[in-house]
Amino acid sequence: MSKRKPAATGASAAIDLSSLSSRPIVIEQVRPAIDHGRFAVKRREGDALQVGAAIFAEGHGALSAVLKLRKAGATDWREFPMVSVNHGLALWEGEAPLEDIGRFEYTIEAWRDLWTSWTDEVGKKVGAHQDVSLELVEGRALVEAAARRAIADDAKYLKTVLKGVDARDATPDSKVALMMSDDLAAVMARWPDRSEAVDYDLTLPLVVDPIRASFAAWYEMFPRSQGTVEGQWGTFEDCIRRLPEVRAMGFDVLYFVPIHPIGVSHRKGKNNSLTAGPDEPGSPYAIGSAEGGHTAIHPALGTMEDFERLVRSANHMGMEVALDIAIQCAPDHPWVTEHPEWFKFRPDGTIKYAENPPKKYQDIVNVEFFGPHQYDLWEELRQVFLFWIRHGVTIFRVDNPHTKPVPFWEWVIRTIKDDYPFVQFLSEAFTRPPMMKMLAKVGFTQSYSYFTWRNSKQELTEYLTELTQTDCVEYMQPNFFANTPDILPEFLQRGGRPAFMIRAVLASTLSTVYGIYNGFELCENDAIPGKEEYNNSEKYEFKVWDWDRPGHIKDLLTRLNHIRLDNRALQDFRALRFYPTDNDDVLFYGRMTADRDNMVFTLCSVNPFDAQHVWMQFPLAEMGIPADQAFEVEDLLSGDRHLWTGPWHHYYLDPAVNPAAIFRIRPWRPVDYRTPSP
Amino acid sequence: MSKRKPAATGASAAIDLSSLSSRPIVIEQVRPAIDHGRFAVKRREGDALQVGAAIFAEGHGALSAVLKLRKAGATDWREFPMVSVNHGLALWEGEAPLEDIGRFEYTIEAWRDLWTSWTDEVGKKVGAHQDVSLELVEGRALVEAAARRAIADDAKYLKTVLKGVDARDATPDSKVALMMSDDLAAVMARWPDRSEAVDYDLTLPLVVDPIRASFAAWYEMFPRSQGTVEGQWGTFEDCIRRLPEVRAMGFDVLYFVPIHPIGVSHRKGKNNSLTAGPDEPGSPYAIGSAEGGHTAIHPALGTMEDFERLVRSANHMGMEVALDIAIQCAPDHPWVTEHPEWFKFRPDGTIKYAENPPKKYQDIVNVEFFGPHQYDLWEELRQVFLFWIRHGVTIFRVDNPHTKPVPFWEWVIRTIKDDYPFVQFLSEAFTRPPMMKMLAKVGFTQSYSYFTWRNSKQELTEYLTELTQTDCVEYMQPNFFANTPDILPEFLQRGGRPAFMIRAVLASTLSTVYGIYNGFELCENDAIPGKEEYNNSEKYEFKVWDWDRPGHIKDLLTRLNHIRLDNRALQDFRALRFYPTDNDDVLFYGRMTADRDNMVFTLCSVNPFDAQHVWMQFPLAEMGIPADQAFEVEDLLSGDRHLWTGPWHHYYLDPAVNPAAIFRIRPWRPVDYRTPSP
Repeated sequence: MSKRKPAATGASAAIDLSSLSSRPIVIEQVRPAIDHGRFAVKRREGDALQVGAAIFAEGHGALSAVLKLRKAGATDWREFPMVSVNHGLALWEGEAPLEDIGRFEYTIEAWRDLWTSWTDEVGKKVGAHQDVSLELVEGRALVEAAARRAIADDAKYLKTVLKGVDARDATPDSKVALMMSDDLAAVMARWPDRSEAVDYDLTLPLVVDPIRASFAAWYEMFPRSQGTVEGQWGTFEDCIRRLPEVRAMGFDVLYFVPIHPIGVSHRKGKNNSLTAGPDEPGSPYAIGSAEGGHTAIHPALGTMEDFERLVRSANHMGMEVALDIAIQCAPDHPWVTEHPEWFKFRPDGTIKYAENPPKKYQDIVNVEFFGPHQYDLWEELRQVFLFWIRHGVTIFRVDNPHTKPVPFWEWVIRTIKDDYPFVQFLSEAFTRPPMMKMLAKVGFTQSYSYFTWRNSKQELTEYLTELTQTDCVEYMQPNFFANTPDILPEFLQRGGRPAFMIRAVLASTLSTVYGIYNGFELCENDAIPGKEEYNNSEKYEFKVWDWDRPGHIKDLLTRLNHIRLDNRALQDFRALRFYPTDNDDVLFYGRMTADRDNMVFTLCSVNPFDAQHVWMQFPLAEMGIPADQAFEVEDLLSGDRHLWTGPWHHYYLDPAVNPAAIFRIRPWRPVDYRTPSP
Repeated sequence: MSKRKPAATGASAAIDLSSLSSRPIVIEQVRPAIDHGRFAVKRREGDALQVGAAIFAEGHGALSAVLKLRKAGATDWREFPMVSVNHGLALWEGEAPLEDIGRFEYTIEAWRDLWTSWTDEVGKKVGAHQDVSLELVEGRALVEAAARRAIADDAKYLKTVLKGVDARDATPDSKVALMMSDDLAAVMARWPDRSEAVDYDLTLPLVVDPIRASFAAWYEMFPRSQGTVEGQWGTFEDCIRRLPEVRAMGFDVLYFVPIHPIGVSHRKGKNNSLTAGPDEPGSPYAIGSAEGGHTAIHPALGTMEDFERLVRSANHMGMEVALDIAIQCAPDHPWVTEHPEWFKFRPDGTIKYAENPPKKYQDIVNVEFFGPHQYDLWEELRQVFLFWIRHGVTIFRVDNPHTKPVPFWEWVIRTIKDDYPFVQFLSEAFTRPPMMKMLAKVGFTQSYSYFTWRNSKQELTEYLTELTQTDCVEYMQPNFFANTPDILPEFLQRGGRPAFMIRAVLASTLSTVYGIYNGFELCENDAIPGKEEYNNSEKYEFKVWDWDRPGHIKDLLTRLNHIRLDNRALQDFRALRFYPTDNDDVLFYGRMTADRDNMVFTLCSVNPFDAQHVWMQFPLAEMGIPADQAFEVEDLLSGDRHLWTGPWHHYYLDPAVNPAAIFRIRPWRPVDYRTPSP
């Protein structure tokens, strides 16, 4: 609707406003926006999209603006009014509800609000007892023009106003009263002249994901280790048997490491040894053998039907299934013989195995993403994802995406989500911050994070502040894994059961999405000395676990997951704020819903050895609680209740018993004794 | 050079990489960049353009990158190497010298550095005593390919290397030595394979201005008040007579308020009264009469020849002339009758005069920037600037640009600077921050600022930190006017001569561009009570000044201007830093050249009444001076010298004598007594 090109008459035709970078109404500083609209902002179903911008033009005239939203590819916009929230900085805000998942785009349109400008001017002049007879004529013309645009009752109303102004007995005062009325202003606001409206130059992309994209508890397992008979492969049937237990703990995403046939050539043995015995299963990440590749199932685990039954059973209990996708091949993967053009051969006719010199991964070869047949390869990889979606998988955990080209991920995620907007992708990119962030920008729903290595109060405070309070919250949703098959952090190795309790509390309350890898609930901490690797790792063998081994923390995990489900505040990642304590070993942080009907504060020691006395400060002003008004505090972990007044309170944390407390706050309404009780 | 489209063969053709937002090599966070390249970064002649970016790709391979710069419209780029400065954040930096003024553009190109990747890998493997015979064959192929690209000596050299590798007596060790040599690495770096290079998606605009755009001292005058005979118009001839004095004070821009014929109808009288007597001259901002409009000269001032002589005389003394351009008309401006289509007529057939209800400016009417003949009007206005450029004006001070459309300014400044890149525009936009900044973004060389109303230490520190340390330093150069014909700040009204001294020091040392309006040097502070307006303002009458009136501060201004000229540190706006004192009424700040060969610190009281004792802290580490080494301190205002050691020093500031000190620092080289003297 904006007027960018002059009428092509005479000398005027020489100036093409569209070639300029500025517009008659400036719309800038539009937020949220990732890299000036290059990448999509992420929100979730049921959220509102709040958009801010600086909107201004020359002079003092009033402006109007709307936020416009539509599904990607749609032609019609839905419009939502924007309001001026800070005149000095020319800031405007608008909000659109997000009722649907998928890809959207939004932009802003602004125009000169001639009627408000007119009423502002006339109001001031009338106030200064100046003559406004000319202004009344000009205002009448505005009403007349609006009457031509308006329909139905509004058109009738405007014509009535015109009649009133034109009436023989109308006085200047009666005309001013008629023209300055709030009723007229409301109708005029509905029929503005938008012929010179200006569009913001960009349409900004938005991806709306299902709630589980930003609120979920993941449980990672090796299906082959879910069996009950020593020396025998666990199967999908065994996994199904474990579902009720996992669900009872409150997990809602069940994540399987790769389930495909495993290569034989150069197979790794126990503890990553170079040779495997005949009965050793190899690493599930050495994908592919004569029995099939990325779309096949390891015969020992069961059949495709068994897998589908497992998925259905999980879904039936309210859990989704996440599958690991590792784009790499064992040397005996079918692609190697069927599509040698996807690999790079060395001068001796071999394919280069994976290396990080001087380290060698002889059981894996990599495809060539930029080879001469790259796009056939890319399409085949896309088909792998689609294959598993057709078999019930809704979430993919992607192994090492940072060693594959960024544009591949943008393309594959984009095209898959165009058809399956509910599908999620978790990026396992333990790499440099800009690459970790870029993978989130190009489409990954969730990201592994540095949480695993952030242990001290200061580290966690700084890291979570970055994740929740800077621009990256607009596109990156971290998934806080407390451990992984590759990472048994030193903190867990050395801190024993209290360390597992502490990290469980931190992962589940600092982030809205978190996960554990099986064994965490058993406080398994047998490491290869000096490394973060598990000793006798499941990566190279299968195990039979006693899932009720003494010392487990399943009760704590169950309670944490249910606290998360019961408290809406804990489901909003960006609501996190840190609050003061007098103890450098104790974190105190909270989340509140916007209307303060749910307020949850976590007090958590980061010291697995020493008991802590701590004073913590509640942010009463933010909580909307007067300093002299009592509030009820329920420790959701211990069940203890307190009635507290004022900001500072004391607590005692014993690592063996309660290294943490999770407080739900309920303000007490003060009784007004002046009002007689019924 | 980037490969964005696949070969159109088979299924591959379906994927068009160019439709994606990401590239095989990510180039992002490119800085400086204004609004993602929408507006030009500003630099000055002789500066270097330092460009930073995050550059990374999948995996661990090495990358190379260049910064590319060219004149706008040119086809060939000049390339400057970029280097990795922070691996963890993937940050790279490059630098290009700016030898010329005008409009430029810059971008970045990156590619995979196959040779460095190869030497990295082989180096690690050789270090781990692994076999590298296959790698040597692969490396030889890289050298062979480079030899095909190389010319002259480099081609010869590479062929010699190949011969050495192929020699019958070459051993694995001799081949490694040959291939891993630094000489070979240097040649290989000159002939990289850039067939898969990736261009940053944007070319970013850059405007390089003359030095005076960001280092200048302005002197504003009413030509009609430069006369010597009471009751008689000053003339251009009088202005010429004043040039030596203004130049001796060290000013280098001479700025004239409008010099055009003044309207008769509704002419304002003394002190803005509604009626003017027959001999009253009217406001020079009520432009135009039967004698001409924006391209005419008021006959009382002289002829066009006189004006040109004035300009030439000023230029001859090293001064440029700045002219005020106010786009508004007296009701008797020739445009009103010759181009009624450029104005908006009211229902009664009049043109609306300027208003800010309930205030009225009856002696001024405004043109319609968006009327049906807007582009003829725009072109006519452009011709006004071009007219004065042809008559020697190189700088335009634009009156109230924020009440005219932003795109008009972008267009008029851009098209004028395309032909006259040395021309400067100063924006007089005392308005909301986003509009002030937007006018700078669309092309204004300099901006009036809020300096006039920033008096306290905290206000000045905060404001200058914003101006020099945030993004706005990339495009906005403030011009710190200590007073203007419209603004006699309360601080000057009430603080007397010390207040004028303080504001002169602050304006000239906080900013690299500053100005005064004539009378400031005389400490003229006669105000209309309760307003910031001058009493008996020159805007409505002409005056005869005694330029040597007792109490003047011309000596101080002269000294300040010469200190600025003598010290390169004071010519670099963004080098400003604030340092601690123990006194909330005393500012301490400094500027240092990059190589520390010029270091100047200003200590300035902001209290015009009370003497101040103050302790100030020198940033010895930044200055490169050990805490136990003496440094010589010369107070450039008083001439006093000190020999100081350590960071904290005491000073005494007496508003009547020295409300400020400007210290030039000269480190003393410590004498090494172990070395016998000659």
